Amino acid sequence: MANTLDVANNLEQALRESDEFKSLKEAYEEVMGEPTAKQMFEDFRDTQLSLQEKQMQGIEITEEEVEKARQIVETVQQHEGISKLMEEEQRLNNLINEISQIITKPLEELYGTAEQN
Amino acid sequence: MANTLDVANNLEQALRESDEFKSLKEAYEEVMGEPTAKQMFEDFRDTQLSLQEKQMQGIEITEEEVEKARQIVETVQQHEGISKLMEEEQRLNNLINEISQIITKPLEELYGTAEQN
Ligand SMILES: [Ca+2]
Ligand SMILES: [Ca+2]
Repeated sequence: MANTLDVANNLEQALRESDEFKSLKEAYEEVMGEPTAKQMFEDFRDTQLSLQEKQMQGIEITEEEVEKARQIVETVQQHEGISKLMEEEQRLNNLINEISQIITKPLEELYGTAEQN
Repeated sequence: MANTLDVANNLEQALRESDEFKSLKEAYEEVMGEPTAKQMFEDFRDTQLSLQEKQMQGIEITEEEVEKARQIVETVQQHEGISKLMEEEQRLNNLINEISQIITKPLEELYGTAEQN
């Protein structure tokens, strides 16, 4: 029986060597290497995080803020390097969600089955 | 280079065979096999979920609800089987958090390093 944390380390290694991660890294370094793109991307990220935080704290988001966020998204989507990066982030996200669904199967089975009794 | 999803499946198998999961399963089945305990545990869980949902939606939680939740927690903690189950849930949770920290290391390194530039 393999040790759980050893296998987790194998998975970390596989993820690091995956096409998904390598492409994300490349796209990220491309954006970070270009000062204007880097600034745009960081503004975009800051705006997203700040809106998420407000949402989680139940603070109402103003129409002005929604409009500002919409404009920033529109701007970054027009930047080829950044939209490539956002695509790669989505791709890696999907992979991580898939992994997460796989490894939580035992728990789902346990709690799901019992629910049917 | 190992395929990421194959390794994720190995990790799922290792988790399923881990002491942490086996003990949780045992504690869970113990509680589910005893109708009174099962009902208490499910009331506890429902209360928790309902409070979490309200929190996430930014709905204020009344003093009455806090008090009711406090009483339910107190009651379930006095039940040996349920408090054992809650301990085992915490133990598995810790393991899953540890796994999650391991497999997100490549991402943290990527985004963390770039931040220092
Ligand atoms: Ca049930
Ligand atoms: Ca930075």
